[in-house]
Amino acid sequence: MKRREFARWVASWGSAATVLQQAQAHAAEAKPEATKETADAHHQQVLARYAHLMGGPKVTFGLLVYPGMFLQDLVGPLTVFESFMNKEIHLIWKNLEPVGNESPGPQALIPVQPTTTFENCPQTLDVLFVPGGVPGTFSMMADEEVLAFLRDRGAKARYVTSVCTGSLILGAAGLLRGYRATSYWDTRDVLKELGAIPSKKRIVVDRNRITGGGVTAGIDFGLTLAAKLRSPDYAKAIQLYLEYDPQPPYNAGSPEKAPRVVRDFLTDMFAGMRETSFALARQAAKKFQ
Amino acid sequence: MKRREFARWVASWGSAATVLQQAQAHAAEAKPEATKETADAHHQQVLARYAHLMGGPKVTFGLLVYPGMFLQDLVGPLTVFESFMNKEIHLIWKNLEPVGNESPGPQALIPVQPTTTFENCPQTLDVLFVPGGVPGTFSMMADEEVLAFLRDRGAKARYVTSVCTGSLILGAAGLLRGYRATSYWDTRDVLKELGAIPSKKRIVVDRNRITGGGVTAGIDFGLTLAAKLRSPDYAKAIQLYLEYDPQPPYNAGSPEKAPRVVRDFLTDMFAGMRETSFALARQAAKKFQ
Repeated sequence: MKRREFARWVASWGSAATVLQQAQAHAAEAKPEATKETADAHHQQVLARYAHLMGGPKVTFGLLVYPGMFLQDLVGPLTVFESFMNKEIHLIWKNLEPVGNESPGPQALIPVQPTTTFENCPQTLDVLFVPGGVPGTFSMMADEEVLAFLRDRGAKARYVTSVCTGSLILGAAGLLRGYRATSYWDTRDVLKELGAIPSKKRIVVDRNRITGGGVTAGIDFGLTLAAKLRSPDYAKAIQLYLEYDPQPPYNAGSPEKAPRVVRDFLTDMFAGMRETSFALARQAAKKFQ
Repeated sequence: MKRREFARWVASWGSAATVLQQAQAHAAEAKPEATKETADAHHQQVLARYAHLMGGPKVTFGLLVYPGMFLQDLVGPLTVFESFMNKEIHLIWKNLEPVGNESPGPQALIPVQPTTTFENCPQTLDVLFVPGGVPGTFSMMADEEVLAFLRDRGAKARYVTSVCTGSLILGAAGLLRGYRATSYWDTRDVLKELGAIPSKKRIVVDRNRITGGGVTAGIDFGLTLAAKLRSPDYAKAIQLYLEYDPQPPYNAGSPEKAPRVVRDFLTDMFAGMRETSFALARQAAKKFQ
Protein backbone atom coordinates (compact mmCIF):
# COMPACT_ATOMS: atom_id res chain seq x y z
CA MET A 1 0.00 0.00 0.00
CA LYS A 2 1.49 3.36 -0.99
CA ARG A 3 1.73 6.24 1.47
CA ARG A 4 -1.08 8.22 -0.19
CA GLU A 5 -3.32 5.22 -0.42
CA PHE A 6 -2.66 4.51 3.23
CA ALA A 7 -3.56 8.13 4.04
CA ARG A 8 -6.80 7.72 2.10
CA TRP A 9 -7.47 4.52 3.95
CA VAL A 10 -6.85 6.28 7.26
CA ALA A 11 -9.10 9.07 6.03
CA SER A 12 -11.95 6.73 5.36
CA TRP A 13 -11.74 4.98 8.75
CA GLY A 14 -14.97 5.44 10.62
CA SER A 15 -17.40 3.28 12.48
CA ALA A 16 -17.32 -0.45 13.02
CA ALA A 17 -19.10 -0.75 9.70
CA THR A 18 -16.25 0.65 7.69
CA VAL A 19 -13.56 -1.02 9.77
CA LEU A 20 -14.30 -4.35 8.26
CA GLN A 21 -14.43 -3.00 4.74
CA GLN A 22 -11.19 -1.08 5.14
CA ALA A 23 -9.38 -3.79 7.01
CA GLN A 24 -10.28 -6.33 4.38
CA ALA A 25 -9.24 -3.96 1.65
CA HIS A 26 -5.97 -3.33 3.45
CA ALA A 27 -5.34 -7.02 3.90
CA ALA A 28 -6.15 -7.54 0.24
CA GLU A 29 -3.68 -4.89 -0.80
CA ALA A 30 -1.00 -6.43 1.38
CA LYS A 31 -1.45 -9.65 -0.55
CA PRO A 32 -1.05 -8.97 -4.27
CA GLU A 33 -3.04 -12.04 -5.21
CA ALA A 34 -6.16 -10.69 -3.56
CA THR A 35 -8.02 -7.76 -5.00
CA LYS A 36 -10.04 -4.92 -3.56
CA GLU A 37 -13.11 -6.50 -5.12
CA THR A 38 -12.49 -9.72 -3.25
CA ALA A 39 -12.15 -7.76 -0.03
CA ASP A 40 -15.37 -5.86 -0.69
CA ALA A 41 -17.12 -9.11 -1.50
CA HIS A 42 -15.85 -10.65 1.74
CA HIS A 43 -17.05 -7.58 3.63
CA GLN A 44 -20.53 -7.97 2.18
CA GLN A 45 -20.51 -11.67 3.04
CA VAL A 46 -19.55 -11.02 6.66
CA LEU A 47 -22.17 -8.32 7.01
CA ALA A 48 -24.80 -10.54 5.45
CA ARG A 49 -23.87 -13.35 7.82
CA TYR A 50 -24.34 -11.07 10.82
CA ALA A 51 -27.27 -9.01 9.53
CA HIS A 52 -29.43 -10.18 12.45
CA LEU A 53 -26.88 -8.63 14.85
CA MET A 54 -25.88 -5.48 13.04
CA GLY A 55 -28.85 -4.45 10.93
CA GLY A 56 -31.38 -1.77 11.77
CA PRO A 57 -32.90 1.50 10.60
CA LYS A 58 -30.87 4.72 10.70
CA VAL A 59 -30.51 6.33 14.13
CA THR A 60 -30.14 10.11 14.41
CA PHE A 61 -28.22 11.26 17.49
CA GLY A 62 -28.24 14.91 18.60
CA LEU A 63 -25.73 15.82 21.32
CA LEU A 64 -25.79 19.24 22.90
CA VAL A 65 -22.27 20.63 23.27
CA TYR A 66 -21.55 23.75 25.31
CA PRO A 67 -18.80 25.79 26.96
CA GLY A 68 -17.85 24.26 30.29
CA MET A 69 -19.14 20.75 29.58
CA PHE A 70 -17.01 17.88 30.82
CA LEU A 71 -15.26 16.19 27.90
CA GLN A 72 -15.55 12.59 29.17
CA ASP A 73 -19.33 13.09 29.65
CA LEU A 74 -19.54 13.70 25.91
CA VAL A 75 -16.90 11.29 24.63
CA GLY A 76 -18.11 8.19 26.53
CA PRO A 77 -21.58 8.14 24.95
CA LEU A 78 -20.20 9.47 21.63
CA THR A 79 -17.81 6.53 21.45
CA VAL A 80 -20.76 4.15 21.80
CA PHE A 81 -22.91 6.08 19.30
CA GLU A 82 -20.04 6.16 16.81
CA SER A 83 -19.85 2.37 16.97
CA PHE A 84 -23.33 2.19 15.42
CA MET A 85 -23.78 1.26 11.82
CA ASN A 86 -26.31 3.35 9.90
CA LYS A 87 -26.33 6.44 12.07
CA GLU A 88 -26.15 10.21 11.85
CA ILE A 89 -24.50 12.22 14.63
CA HIS A 90 -24.96 15.92 15.29
CA LEU A 91 -23.02 18.01 17.81
CA ILE A 92 -25.35 20.91 18.46
CA TRP A 93 -24.73 24.43 19.72
CA LYS A 94 -26.02 27.99 19.17
CA ASN A 95 -23.40 28.56 16.49
CA LEU A 96 -20.48 26.78 14.86
CA GLU A 97 -17.75 28.28 17.04
CA PRO A 98 -15.71 25.65 18.89
CA VAL A 99 -16.90 25.23 22.48
CA GLY A 100 -15.10 24.07 25.58
CA ASN A 101 -11.85 25.94 25.16
CA GLU A 102 -12.42 28.25 28.12
CA SER A 103 -10.00 26.91 30.64
CA PRO A 104 -6.97 24.82 31.47
CA GLY A 105 -8.95 21.53 31.64
CA PRO A 106 -9.56 18.57 29.31
CA GLN A 107 -12.32 20.61 27.74
CA ALA A 108 -9.73 23.31 27.01
CA LEU A 109 -7.06 21.03 25.63
CA ILE A 110 -9.62 19.54 23.28
CA PRO A 111 -12.21 22.07 22.12
CA VAL A 112 -15.25 20.64 20.38
CA GLN A 113 -16.47 21.91 17.02
CA PRO A 114 -20.28 21.83 16.75
CA THR A 115 -21.53 20.27 13.52
CA THR A 116 -24.89 22.02 13.46
CA THR A 117 -26.81 24.86 15.10
CA PHE A 118 -30.07 24.97 17.08
CA GLU A 119 -31.65 26.41 13.94
CA ASN A 120 -30.37 23.78 11.51
CA CYS A 121 -30.57 20.73 13.76
CA PRO A 122 -33.00 18.08 12.46
CA GLN A 123 -36.47 18.50 13.94
CA THR A 124 -36.83 14.86 14.89
CA LEU A 125 -33.99 13.18 16.71
CA ASP A 126 -33.97 9.57 17.81
CA VAL A 127 -31.74 10.54 20.69
CA LEU A 128 -31.36 13.96 22.32
CA PHE A 129 -28.37 13.87 24.68
CA VAL A 130 -27.00 16.42 27.16
CA PRO A 131 -23.58 16.00 28.82
CA GLY A 132 -22.81 17.41 32.26
CA GLY A 133 -20.17 19.75 33.53
CA VAL A 134 -19.43 22.43 36.05
CA PRO A 135 -19.76 25.40 35.89
CA GLY A 136 -20.91 25.38 32.25
CA THR A 137 -23.92 23.41 33.38
CA PHE A 138 -25.00 26.24 35.69
CA SER A 139 -24.78 28.63 32.79
CA MET A 140 -26.98 26.34 30.66
CA MET A 141 -29.56 25.96 33.46
CA ALA A 142 -30.24 29.68 33.19
CA ASP A 143 -29.93 30.06 29.42
CA GLU A 144 -33.40 30.50 27.89
CA GLU A 145 -32.19 29.92 24.32
CA VAL A 146 -30.73 26.54 25.29
CA LEU A 147 -33.74 25.54 27.40
CA ALA A 148 -36.17 26.49 24.60
CA PHE A 149 -34.22 24.38 22.11
CA LEU A 150 -34.18 21.38 24.46
CA ARG A 151 -37.91 21.77 25.18
CA ASP A 152 -38.68 21.83 21.44
CA ARG A 153 -36.53 18.86 20.33
CA GLY A 154 -37.15 17.02 23.60
CA ALA A 155 -40.89 16.98 22.94
CA LYS A 156 -40.29 15.26 19.59
CA ALA A 157 -37.29 13.02 20.33
CA ARG A 158 -37.62 9.28 20.71
CA TYR A 159 -35.26 9.33 23.72
CA VAL A 160 -34.37 12.31 25.93
CA THR A 161 -31.11 11.56 27.70
CA SER A 162 -28.25 12.86 29.80
CA VAL A 163 -25.18 11.92 31.80
CA CYS A 164 -23.94 13.49 35.04
CA THR A 165 -25.18 17.03 35.72
CA GLY A 166 -26.65 17.12 32.21
CA SER A 167 -29.92 16.06 33.88
CA LEU A 168 -29.99 19.42 35.69
CA ILE A 169 -30.17 21.12 32.29
CA LEU A 170 -32.89 18.75 31.06
CA GLY A 171 -34.65 19.38 34.38
CA ALA A 172 -34.34 23.17 34.06
CA ALA A 173 -36.01 22.83 30.64
CA GLY A 174 -38.90 21.10 32.41
CA LEU A 175 -38.22 17.81 30.67
CA LEU A 176 -37.92 15.68 33.80
CA ARG A 177 -41.09 16.75 35.64
CA GLY A 178 -42.75 13.60 36.95
CA TYR A 179 -39.90 11.36 35.77
CA ARG A 180 -37.49 9.29 37.81
CA ALA A 181 -33.97 10.47 37.02
CA THR A 182 -30.39 10.57 38.25
CA SER A 183 -27.45 12.97 38.18
CA TYR A 184 -23.94 13.34 39.59
CA TRP A 185 -23.91 11.82 43.11
CA ASP A 186 -23.53 15.20 44.76
CA THR A 187 -26.36 16.90 42.81
CA ARG A 188 -28.87 14.05 42.64
CA ASP A 189 -31.23 15.66 45.16
CA VAL A 190 -31.23 18.92 43.19
CA LEU A 191 -33.50 17.08 40.73
CA LYS A 192 -36.35 17.29 43.28
CA GLU A 193 -36.41 21.05 42.84
CA LEU A 194 -36.99 20.45 39.13
CA GLY A 195 -40.00 18.18 39.68
CA ALA A 196 -38.13 14.92 39.07
CA ILE A 197 -37.92 11.89 41.34
CA PRO A 198 -34.22 11.33 42.16
CA SER A 199 -32.89 7.79 41.95
CA LYS A 200 -29.59 6.36 43.14
CA LYS A 201 -29.36 3.93 40.23
CA ARG A 202 -26.44 4.39 37.85
CA ILE A 203 -28.74 4.42 34.81
CA VAL A 204 -32.37 5.40 35.23
CA VAL A 205 -34.89 4.58 32.51
CA ASP A 206 -38.37 6.06 32.93
CA ARG A 207 -40.45 5.87 29.77
CA ASN A 208 -38.32 7.67 27.15
CA ARG A 209 -36.11 9.50 29.63
CA ILE A 210 -32.72 7.87 30.24
CA THR A 211 -30.36 9.58 32.65
CA GLY A 212 -26.95 8.40 33.81
CA GLY A 213 -24.86 9.07 36.93
CA GLY A 214 -21.60 11.01 36.99
CA VAL A 215 -19.04 11.26 34.17
CA THR A 216 -17.98 7.63 33.61
CA ALA A 217 -21.62 6.45 33.71
CA GLY A 218 -21.73 7.57 30.06
CA ILE A 219 -20.42 4.22 28.86
CA ASP A 220 -22.99 2.22 30.87
CA PHE A 221 -25.62 4.66 29.60
CA GLY A 222 -24.53 4.29 25.98
CA LEU A 223 -24.72 0.50 26.10
CA THR A 224 -28.15 0.59 27.78
CA LEU A 225 -29.39 2.84 25.00
CA ALA A 226 -27.75 0.72 22.29
CA ALA A 227 -29.73 -2.30 23.46
CA LYS A 228 -32.97 -0.31 23.21
CA LEU A 229 -32.16 1.14 19.78
CA ARG A 230 -30.94 -2.16 18.31
CA SER A 231 -30.74 -5.25 20.54
CA PRO A 232 -28.88 -6.65 23.56
CA ASP A 233 -26.54 -8.55 21.19
CA TYR A 234 -25.79 -5.31 19.39
CA ALA A 235 -24.92 -3.66 22.72
CA LYS A 236 -22.71 -6.63 23.59
CA ALA A 237 -20.88 -6.31 20.27
CA ILE A 238 -20.14 -2.66 21.08
CA GLN A 239 -19.09 -3.66 24.60
CA LEU A 240 -16.55 -6.15 23.27
CA TYR A 241 -15.47 -3.70 20.55
CA LEU A 242 -14.63 -1.21 23.34
CA GLU A 243 -13.30 -4.01 25.59
CA TYR A 244 -15.55 -2.70 28.33
CA ASP A 245 -14.72 -5.15 31.09
CA PRO A 246 -14.15 -2.62 33.87
CA GLN A 247 -11.79 -3.53 36.70
CA PRO A 248 -11.27 -0.43 38.82
CA PRO A 249 -8.20 -0.84 41.05
CA TYR A 250 -10.27 0.45 44.00
CA ASN A 251 -13.88 0.33 45.06
CA ALA A 252 -14.50 4.00 45.73
CA GLY A 253 -16.75 5.08 42.87
CA SER A 254 -19.78 6.08 44.92
CA PRO A 255 -20.12 8.12 48.13
CA GLU A 256 -21.24 4.96 49.95
CA LYS A 257 -18.18 2.99 48.84
CA ALA A 258 -15.47 5.67 49.10
CA PRO A 259 -13.48 6.10 52.31
CA ARG A 260 -14.99 8.76 54.53
CA VAL A 261 -12.03 11.12 54.16
CA VAL A 262 -12.33 11.02 50.35
CA ARG A 263 -16.06 11.66 50.47
CA ASP A 264 -15.62 14.50 52.94
CA PHE A 265 -12.91 16.07 50.83
CA LEU A 266 -15.07 16.12 47.70
CA THR A 267 -18.17 17.21 49.59
CA ASP A 268 -16.23 20.15 51.03
CA MET A 269 -14.77 20.88 47.63
CA PHE A 270 -18.21 20.91 45.96
CA ALA A 271 -20.08 22.77 48.71
CA GLY A 272 -20.34 26.00 46.75
CA MET A 273 -21.36 24.27 43.54
CA ARG A 274 -24.04 22.31 45.32
CA GLU A 275 -25.47 25.49 46.79
CA THR A 276 -25.38 27.20 43.40
CA SER A 277 -27.08 24.31 41.64
CA PHE A 278 -29.92 24.32 44.19
CA ALA A 279 -30.38 28.06 43.73
CA LEU A 280 -30.41 27.76 39.93
CA ALA A 281 -32.84 24.81 40.04
CA ARG A 282 -35.30 26.78 42.20
CA GLN A 283 -34.98 29.72 39.84
CA ALA A 284 -35.66 27.49 36.81
CA ALA A 285 -38.64 25.79 38.47
CA LYS A 286 -40.33 29.16 39.05
CA LYS A 287 -40.83 29.40 35.29
CA PHE A 288 -42.66 26.06 35.02
CA GLN A 289 -46.40 26.41 34.37
CA MET B 1 -22.81 37.41 39.67
CA LYS B 2 -22.84 39.38 36.43
CA ARG B 3 -22.74 37.69 33.04
CA ARG B 4 -19.14 38.70 32.35
CA GLU B 5 -17.97 37.65 35.78
CA PHE B 6 -19.71 34.32 35.29
CA ALA B 7 -17.98 33.96 31.93
CA ARG B 8 -14.66 34.67 33.61
CA TRP B 9 -15.50 32.12 36.25
CA VAL B 10 -16.33 29.57 33.59
CA ALA B 11 -13.09 30.53 31.87
CA SER B 12 -11.06 29.82 34.95
CA TRP B 13 -12.60 26.40 35.61
CA GLY B 14 -9.92 23.79 35.51
CA SER B 15 -8.87 20.83 37.57
CA ALA B 16 -10.25 19.63 40.86
CA ALA B 17 -7.88 22.08 42.51
CA THR B 18 -9.53 25.15 41.05
CA VAL B 19 -13.06 23.79 41.38
CA LEU B 20 -13.06 24.37 45.09
CA GLN B 21 -11.64 27.83 44.79
CA GLN B 22 -14.08 28.85 42.10
CA ALA B 23 -17.07 27.20 43.67
CA GLN B 24 -16.36 28.91 46.97
CA ALA B 25 -15.85 32.23 45.23
CA HIS B 26 -19.13 31.73 43.37
CA ALA B 27 -20.96 30.87 46.58
CA ALA B 28 -19.39 33.91 48.19
CA GLU B 29 -20.56 36.17 45.39
CA ALA B 30 -24.05 34.75 45.67
CA LYS B 31 -24.08 35.86 49.33
CA PRO B 32 -23.24 39.56 49.50
CA GLU B 33 -22.14 39.26 53.14
CA ALA B 34 -19.32 36.90 52.15
CA THR B 35 -16.32 38.15 50.26
CA LYS B 36 -13.98 36.63 47.73
CA GLU B 37 -11.26 36.79 50.35
CA THR B 38 -13.35 34.69 52.71
CA ALA B 39 -13.88 32.17 49.94
CA ASP B 40 -10.18 32.05 49.16
CA ALA B 41 -9.38 31.64 52.82
CA HIS B 42 -11.88 28.78 53.08
CA HIS B 43 -10.32 27.19 50.01
CA GLN B 44 -6.90 27.31 51.63
CA GLN B 45 -8.33 25.87 54.82
CA VAL B 46 -9.92 22.93 53.02
CA LEU B 47 -6.75 22.25 51.06
CA ALA B 48 -4.65 22.44 54.22
CA ARG B 49 -7.02 20.04 55.95
CA TYR B 50 -6.62 17.51 53.14
CA ALA B 51 -2.96 18.13 52.33
CA HIS B 52 -2.10 14.52 53.20
CA LEU B 53 -4.55 13.39 50.49
CA MET B 54 -4.00 15.95 47.78
CA GLY B 55 -0.43 17.17 48.09
CA GLY B 56 2.55 16.06 46.03
CA PRO B 57 5.27 17.26 43.67
CA LYS B 58 4.41 18.39 40.13
CA VAL B 59 3.72 15.61 37.63
CA THR B 60 4.52 16.15 33.94
CA PHE B 61 2.37 14.11 31.57
CA GLY B 62 3.24 13.75 27.89
CA LEU B 63 0.55 12.18 25.69
CA LEU B 64 1.32 11.30 22.10
CA VAL B 65 -1.57 12.33 19.82
CA TYR B 66 -1.74 11.23 16.20
CA PRO B 67 -4.00 10.96 13.17
CA GLY B 68 -6.21 7.89 13.47
CA MET B 69 -5.96 7.48 17.24
CA PHE B 70 -9.13 6.49 19.05
CA LEU B 71 -10.53 9.47 20.97
CA GLN B 72 -11.72 7.53 24.05
CA ASP B 73 -8.24 5.98 24.40
CA LEU B 74 -6.91 9.49 24.89
CA VAL B 75 -9.77 11.09 26.81
CA GLY B 76 -10.14 8.38 29.49
CA PRO B 77 -6.57 8.74 30.82
CA LEU B 78 -6.57 12.49 30.12
CA THR B 79 -9.66 12.88 32.32
CA VAL B 80 -7.81 11.18 35.17
CA PHE B 81 -4.60 13.17 34.57
CA GLU B 82 -6.57 16.43 34.45
CA SER B 83 -7.98 15.65 37.89
CA PHE B 84 -4.47 15.95 39.34
CA MET B 85 -3.45 18.99 41.29
CA ASN B 86 0.00 20.35 40.50
CA LYS B 87 0.47 18.89 37.04
CA GLU B 88 1.54 19.84 33.54
CA ILE B 89 -0.02 18.13 30.51
CA HIS B 90 1.43 18.05 27.01
CA LEU B 91 -0.32 16.70 23.90
CA ILE B 92 2.56 15.87 21.61
CA TRP B 93 2.80 15.54 17.85
CA LYS B 94 5.24 16.28 15.03
CA ASN B 95 3.72 19.72 14.54
CA LEU B 96 0.89 21.85 15.90
CA GLU B 97 -1.68 20.96 13.23
CA PRO B 98 -4.84 19.42 14.69
CA VAL B 99 -4.79 15.63 14.42
CA GLY B 100 -7.58 13.11 14.21
CA ASN B 101 -9.86 14.89 11.79
CA GLU B 102 -9.35 12.40 8.99
CA SER B 103 -12.62 10.56 8.97
CA PRO B 104 -16.27 10.35 9.94
CA GLY B 105 -15.53 8.98 13.43
CA PRO B 106 -15.32 10.45 16.96
CA GLN B 107 -11.76 11.37 16.16
CA ALA B 108 -13.07 13.37 13.21
CA LEU B 109 -15.92 15.07 15.02
CA ILE B 110 -13.46 16.16 17.68
CA PRO B 111 -9.99 16.89 16.26
CA VAL B 112 -7.24 17.28 18.83
CA GLN B 113 -4.87 20.23 18.85
CA PRO B 114 -1.34 19.26 19.94
CA THR B 115 0.10 21.58 22.58
CA THR B 116 3.76 20.87 21.81
CA THR B 117 6.00 19.24 19.21
CA PHE B 118 8.53 16.41 19.39
CA GLU B 119 11.21 19.07 19.29
CA ASN B 120 9.83 21.26 22.07
CA CYS B 121 8.47 18.55 24.35
CA PRO B 122 10.16 18.50 27.78
CA GLN B 123 13.11 16.08 27.86
CA THR B 124 12.04 14.43 31.10
CA LEU B 125 8.44 13.34 31.45
CA ASP B 126 7.00 11.67 34.52
CA VAL B 127 4.54 9.88 32.26
CA LEU B 128 4.87 9.11 28.56
CA PHE B 129 1.51 7.86 27.27
CA VAL B 130 0.46 6.45 23.89
CA PRO B 131 -3.22 5.91 22.98
CA GLY B 132 -4.35 3.22 20.56
CA GLY B 133 -6.34 3.33 17.38
CA VAL B 134 -6.77 1.69 14.03
CA PRO B 135 -5.49 2.27 11.40
CA GLY B 136 -3.56 5.30 12.69
CA THR B 137 -1.69 2.92 14.95
CA PHE B 138 -0.40 0.95 11.98
CA SER B 139 0.89 4.14 10.46
CA MET B 140 2.73 5.00 13.72
CA MET B 141 4.24 1.50 13.96
CA ALA B 142 6.11 2.21 10.75
CA ASP B 143 6.90 5.89 11.32
CA GLU B 144 10.60 6.27 12.19
CA GLU B 145 10.21 9.87 13.38
CA VAL B 146 7.56 8.83 15.89
CA LEU B 147 9.47 5.74 17.02
CA ALA B 148 12.69 7.72 17.50
CA PHE B 149 10.85 10.29 19.63
CA LEU B 150 9.29 7.57 21.80
CA ARG B 151 12.64 5.79 22.18
CA ASP B 152 14.29 9.02 23.31
CA ARG B 153 11.66 10.19 25.83
CA GLY B 154 10.82 6.62 26.82
CA ALA B 155 14.41 6.04 27.98
CA LYS B 156 14.13 9.04 30.32
CA ALA B 157 10.50 8.90 31.46
CA ARG B 158 9.50 7.75 34.92
CA TYR B 159 6.62 5.71 33.46
CA VAL B 160 6.19 4.49 29.89
CA THR B 161 2.52 3.74 29.31
CA SER B 162 -0.20 2.95 26.81
CA VAL B 163 -3.80 1.90 26.37
CA CYS B 164 -5.25 -0.43 23.73
CA THR B 165 -3.16 -0.83 20.58
CA GLY B 166 -0.91 1.99 21.81
CA SER B 167 1.31 -0.80 23.15
CA LEU B 168 2.01 -1.90 19.57
CA ILE B 169 3.55 1.52 18.94
CA LEU B 170 5.62 1.35 22.15
CA GLY B 171 6.57 -2.16 21.12
CA ALA B 172 7.58 -1.09 17.61
CA ALA B 173 9.85 1.49 19.26
CA GLY B 174 11.51 -1.40 21.11
CA LEU B 175 10.28 -0.15 24.47
CA LEU B 176 8.54 -3.36 25.54
CA ARG B 177 11.32 -5.89 24.85
CA GLY B 178 11.48 -8.20 27.85
CA TYR B 179 8.48 -6.59 29.51
CA ARG B 180 5.09 -8.10 30.31
CA ALA B 181 2.46 -6.02 28.54
CA THR B 182 -1.09 -6.02 27.22
CA SER B 183 -2.99 -4.57 24.27
CA TYR B 184 -6.45 -4.69 22.67
CA TRP B 185 -7.84 -8.23 23.15
CA ASP B 186 -7.51 -9.05 19.47
CA THR B 187 -3.91 -7.83 19.11
CA ARG B 188 -2.46 -8.97 22.43
CA ASP B 189 -0.44 -11.78 20.86
CA VAL B 190 1.09 -9.37 18.35
CA LEU B 191 3.20 -8.14 21.27
CA LYS B 192 5.22 -11.36 21.12
CA GLU B 193 6.59 -10.30 17.74
CA LEU B 194 7.85 -7.15 19.45
CA GLY B 195 9.74 -9.01 22.16
CA ALA B 196 7.15 -8.44 24.89
CA ILE B 197 5.42 -11.06 27.04
CA PRO B 198 1.68 -10.73 26.42
CA SER B 199 -0.62 -10.76 29.44
CA LYS B 200 -4.41 -11.06 29.65
CA LYS B 201 -4.63 -8.72 32.62
CA ARG B 202 -6.57 -5.49 32.08
CA ILE B 203 -3.69 -3.40 33.44
CA VAL B 204 -0.17 -4.78 33.32
CA VAL B 205 2.54 -3.20 35.44
CA ASP B 206 6.11 -4.43 34.83
CA ARG B 207 8.74 -2.19 36.38
CA ASN B 208 8.02 1.25 34.88
CA ARG B 209 5.96 -0.01 31.94
CA ILE B 210 2.20 0.20 32.46
CA THR B 211 -0.03 -0.97 29.62
CA GLY B 212 -3.82 -1.18 29.56
CA GLY B 213 -6.29 -3.28 27.59
CA GLY B 214 -8.69 -1.96 24.94
CA VAL B 215 -10.23 1.53 24.82
CA THR B 216 -12.21 1.73 28.08
CA ALA B 217 -9.28 0.27 30.07
CA GLY B 218 -7.92 3.82 30.01
CA ILE B 219 -9.87 4.75 33.14
CA ASP B 220 -8.66 1.69 35.10
CA PHE B 221 -5.16 2.47 33.84
CA GLY B 222 -5.37 6.13 34.86
CA LEU B 223 -6.42 5.26 38.40
CA THR B 224 -3.69 2.63 38.73
CA LEU B 225 -1.13 5.22 37.70
CA ALA B 226 -2.64 7.90 39.98
CA ALA B 227 -2.08 5.62 42.98
CA LYS B 228 1.58 5.18 42.01
CA LEU B 229 2.16 8.88 41.36
CA ARG B 230 0.38 10.04 44.53
CA SER B 231 -1.35 7.47 46.77
CA PRO B 232 -4.26 5.00 46.80
CA ASP B 233 -6.42 7.61 48.61
CA TYR B 234 -5.62 10.12 45.87
CA ALA B 235 -6.73 7.60 43.23
CA LYS B 236 -9.91 6.96 45.22
CA ALA B 237 -10.64 10.69 45.34
CA ILE B 238 -10.37 10.83 41.55
CA GLN B 239 -12.52 7.70 41.27
CA LEU B 240 -15.31 9.30 43.30
CA TYR B 241 -14.83 12.61 41.49
CA LEU B 242 -15.49 10.75 38.21
CA GLU B 243 -18.17 8.58 39.87
CA TYR B 244 -16.40 5.53 38.48
CA ASP B 245 -18.63 2.80 39.83
CA PRO B 246 -19.03 0.84 36.58
CA GLN B 247 -22.18 -1.20 36.09
CA PRO B 248 -22.21 -2.46 32.50
CA PRO B 249 -25.70 -3.62 31.51
CA TYR B 250 -24.14 -6.79 30.05
CA ASN B 251 -21.16 -8.96 30.81
CA ALA B 252 -19.58 -9.11 27.36
CA GLY B 253 -16.48 -6.97 27.67
CA SER B 254 -13.90 -9.66 26.96
CA PRO B 255 -13.74 -12.38 24.30
CA GLU B 256 -14.18 -15.00 27.05
CA LYS B 257 -17.33 -13.35 28.40
CA ALA B 258 -19.00 -12.25 25.15
CA PRO B 259 -21.50 -14.52 23.39
CA ARG B 260 -19.85 -16.57 20.71
CA VAL B 261 -21.70 -14.86 17.87
CA VAL B 262 -20.50 -11.45 19.05
CA ARG B 263 -16.90 -12.63 19.38
CA ASP B 264 -17.02 -14.27 15.95
CA PHE B 265 -18.48 -11.15 14.39
CA LEU B 266 -15.70 -8.92 15.71
CA THR B 267 -12.99 -11.47 14.97
CA ASP B 268 -14.20 -11.67 11.37
CA MET B 269 -14.43 -7.90 11.24
CA PHE B 270 -10.88 -7.43 12.51
CA ALA B 271 -9.26 -10.26 10.51
CA GLY B 272 -7.51 -7.91 8.11
CA MET B 273 -6.33 -5.56 10.83
CA ARG B 274 -4.93 -8.41 12.86
CA GLU B 275 -3.00 -9.68 9.86
CA THR B 276 -1.68 -6.19 9.15
CA SER B 277 -0.59 -5.59 12.73
CA PHE B 278 1.36 -8.88 12.75
CA ALA B 279 3.08 -7.91 9.50
CA LEU B 280 3.97 -4.46 10.81
CA ALA B 281 5.23 -5.87 14.12
CA ARG B 282 7.55 -8.29 12.32
CA GLN B 283 8.79 -5.48 10.14
CA ALA B 284 9.48 -3.27 13.20
CA ALA B 285 11.24 -6.09 15.08
CA LYS B 286 13.69 -6.55 12.20
CA LYS B 287 15.19 -3.17 13.12
CA PHE B 288 15.87 -4.13 16.75
CA GLN B 289 19.54 -4.64 17.59
